[in-house]
Amino acid sequence: MTSSTSTSATSSSSTCRRTSPAAPSDGEGVGPRIRRASPGGASVTPEEFRRHGHDLIDWIADYRASLPQRPVRASVAPGDIAAQLAASAPEDGEDPTAVLGDLDDIVMPGLTHWQHPRFFNFFPANSELSSVLGDIASSGLGVLGLSWEASPALSEVEQVVLGWARDLFGLPADFRGVIQDTASTATLLAMLEARERASDFAMMGPGLTQASAPLTVYLSPYAHSSVRKAVLLAGFGEDQIRWVDVDEDFAMDPESLAEAVAADRAAGAVPAAVVATCGTTTTTGLDPLAAIGEVAAAHGLWFHVDAAMAGSALILPEMRGMADGIDRADSLVINVHKWFGVAFDCSLFFVRDPAHLEAVMSTNPSYLQSDRDAEVTNLRDWGVPLGRRFRALKLWFMLRIEGAEAIRARLRRDLENARWFAAQVEAEPDWTVVAPVPLQTVCIRHEPPGLTGEDLDAHTREWARAVNDSGRAYVSPSTLDGRWMVRISIGSLTTERSDVAALWETLKEAAAP
Amino acid sequence: MTSSTSTSATSSSSTCRRTSPAAPSDGEGVGPRIRRASPGGASVTPEEFRRHGHDLIDWIADYRASLPQRPVRASVAPGDIAAQLAASAPEDGEDPTAVLGDLDDIVMPGLTHWQHPRFFNFFPANSELSSVLGDIASSGLGVLGLSWEASPALSEVEQVVLGWARDLFGLPADFRGVIQDTASTATLLAMLEARERASDFAMMGPGLTQASAPLTVYLSPYAHSSVRKAVLLAGFGEDQIRWVDVDEDFAMDPESLAEAVAADRAAGAVPAAVVATCGTTTTTGLDPLAAIGEVAAAHGLWFHVDAAMAGSALILPEMRGMADGIDRADSLVINVHKWFGVAFDCSLFFVRDPAHLEAVMSTNPSYLQSDRDAEVTNLRDWGVPLGRRFRALKLWFMLRIEGAEAIRARLRRDLENARWFAAQVEAEPDWTVVAPVPLQTVCIRHEPPGLTGEDLDAHTREWARAVNDSGRAYVSPSTLDGRWMVRISIGSLTTERSDVAALWETLKEAAAP
Repeated sequence: MTSSTSTSATSSSSTCRRTSPAAPSDGEGVGPRIRRASPGGASVTPEEFRRHGHDLIDWIADYRASLPQRPVRASVAPGDIAAQLAASAPEDGEDPTAVLGDLDDIVMPGLTHWQHPRFFNFFPANSELSSVLGDIASSGLGVLGLSWEASPALSEVEQVVLGWARDLFGLPADFRGVIQDTASTATLLAMLEARERASDFAMMGPGLTQASAPLTVYLSPYAHSSVRKAVLLAGFGEDQIRWVDVDEDFAMDPESLAEAVAADRAAGAVPAAVVATCGTTTTTGLDPLAAIGEVAAAHGLWFHVDAAMAGSALILPEMRGMADGIDRADSLVINVHKWFGVAFDCSLFFVRDPAHLEAVMSTNPSYLQSDRDAEVTNLRDWGVPLGRRFRALKLWFMLRIEGAEAIRARLRRDLENARWFAAQVEAEPDWTVVAPVPLQTVCIRHEPPGLTGEDLDAHTREWARAVNDSGRAYVSPSTLDGRWMVRISIGSLTTERSDVAALWETLKEAAAP
Repeated sequence: MTSSTSTSATSSSSTCRRTSPAAPSDGEGVGPRIRRASPGGASVTPEEFRRHGHDLIDWIADYRASLPQRPVRASVAPGDIAAQLAASAPEDGEDPTAVLGDLDDIVMPGLTHWQHPRFFNFFPANSELSSVLGDIASSGLGVLGLSWEASPALSEVEQVVLGWARDLFGLPADFRGVIQDTASTATLLAMLEARERASDFAMMGPGLTQASAPLTVYLSPYAHSSVRKAVLLAGFGEDQIRWVDVDEDFAMDPESLAEAVAADRAAGAVPAAVVATCGTTTTTGLDPLAAIGEVAAAHGLWFHVDAAMAGSALILPEMRGMADGIDRADSLVINVHKWFGVAFDCSLFFVRDPAHLEAVMSTNPSYLQSDRDAEVTNLRDWGVPLGRRFRALKLWFMLRIEGAEAIRARLRRDLENARWFAAQVEAEPDWTVVAPVPLQTVCIRHEPPGLTGEDLDAHTREWARAVNDSGRAYVSPSTLDGRWMVRISIGSLTTERSDVAALWETLKEAAAP
């Protein structure tokens, strides 16, 4: 074990790294002090867990408080972390304090800090400490919901809290929701539902190979990469994806959609599904859901809405216009583990017709049957996994401890910060905002006079790299319309106006000649 | 909010329910004391998290210590828990102590206690407190591994620790592993890999509808229900499942498999995959992997091994004979969140050819690209979800804190308990063990003289229900060969011989006339 010799206790001071061994609160000496359990017993007893758990809570609190002082992005090289780990598992147990020590010494330098106030890459993957409390409760309980009977509260809290979320987001009252791990999985479920509706349940009969005609799917080129992946995994085939035209705001053009569907029908294909995005990854672009939903309804397409990112903003009544027509969706995903603030993973998948979802996903072997089955919902039949954590606790904890109004205030802060930042960029010579800013993401480019094409691309990637290498902020170089630009995704929990202002100074420095 | 008025602090005493408000350790008064954050700030500050986190750790320690005194199974009626929850999310935040209070008052009576020493249903879903510590660290860090760069340590620790696990289980050194949520998902990945290999990557071209021949899959009727589900979701079709004969020990017959494959070939189908099980759900039956692997190799079938349950026992060198031939597998799943002890969810998916897995699963949009991509493994391309928690921490913590030898000792204890229990049942008049006991599951029936057929089924279900209703133990009524019997799955962390002896007395009482 290369680095397991540390036996110092984790510090409960406010420094971000352990500087000296602190005495455990129970007054025992420092050093290996775990009592090895008798063969067969659980090795960490509840009392030992209490002691080390308190250390760990302090460690987390210290970590969160220390974030502004840390570089945002890890600057290790590939293999650096792996090289510090042992080649094999230890035969004999080690003191938990040694493992916590290695978490500090080996793991921490290899982490990019997603909860950092100057994390502007990807999307805000907020992990509110209120929801972390719920997640800890779930881990500690160690209960599973294979079926309603296997832990009734697990199923019922999930269903009730998904109803809360549906109402908070202003979704139709007949939508029913279930927690999935990620939008990638939720979208795969939607595509499987669409495939089975369009193929007259080929999965329950001869299979997709025996379906008579190709099943076509309609996507925007700005759909998330997981949408194409879901379509391919569901077996539709790359050749059956129709890439629908977008308008100048990078939003799907419903007329192009209708034309493509008509052409496919005429050619003998079976149009199966359209996926619209509420808040695209690249620009938070907004597909026109009402018009797309109309085409879907007219042609019997499954209508899936990917609101993974922007769905959080539906908690703001003033923002619901962007999702006008969302009530037409057959299925819908909102990642409350993004901007909203629930500790990953907590992706909310809503459907209009849970009976169809159950028809695609159900299993019912004898050992999972119970006398109550007629009266209850078994969430195993609402997705792929049979096993089910008590994931609803982290959503329940967060909604109750924060309350809806505090969440709204935070999201409004972020929208205001994005507008402010976009205004700074627009006011600065040689800088430009390259896409509309309907939400909290601002896509920008520094365009010095005379720099175009691949030279401009190289410049863009270079200053973005300089920013990220500096550790002072972490931004997202990305392509739009074939050219590199930089996405600034605003909305980490602790990102205030001052952080955005500091970012702006950092960007200008990095891009300066 | 029906039940959110409680403001008492959670107790840190050793009773299993809060009996009186306990003073928080920092000496502040009891009652709502959370400072509402300024608009936009994280509502629970690190210091508030520290206080409530300590309460929660105590609550978990108390809960684990209290388990033997609790009824194993919840005895609530459908809707009981939901009826106690508010109809909508609160507008204003509440004190975390109120939520913890409702966790006690509303949720706990609705939980079936999977960590209970007399939990004998389903399978042991052990959640070692050492691994809970790792899970808490992961929740607190809130980092995601969308790509290697997004948190290098997240990817590297996962790959190293999966190597540790591979070696602990005696798997071939060229197998590579990745964490999935459940075996259901891992098996779906395996079926997608098989489908694409057999269809010459139809997903990347015309799609499965345009494949020329049916793709057939070979399963044992004792395969887990998630296997059939995975085959159907992958689009093969129910009609293309071949249910292979089993022998008198409920193990797949390789000759029947070879005959079925040959018949399908002759009929113009494309045999695509066979799934063998190492430890079936019903009886922990063992399919003969070496012989099945030979058929698979001879006919180019994808060979997936479902060792979700029994795979844990591969840590015992003396048990590896049961999995002879596992080195022939193309893919393999072991749920270390079962008997092994890692907090759910942690399903290990091993493959022989990661390049094929990546070919089926990869996505590479610009915003996920980094300069390091040529040098690193991006685990997003090893499964469905793009988002990735630091799940490896709970496995790393458990392996290091327990050490391999303590895990082996615990599993040997459970095997010994199962043999002891089976011997008691066999020695008792009118009781019988109805399937071989290769592992820790004992399938039994009480057969009073003269009782047969449906009368016997009714008797079996009745005494199992009586046991489960009593709260003294939780057992698993299930069918075998069309008749009801009761599975006794031994191996919860704290299940000692005395618990198994108590179970036996409970069973005899319940089945007595």
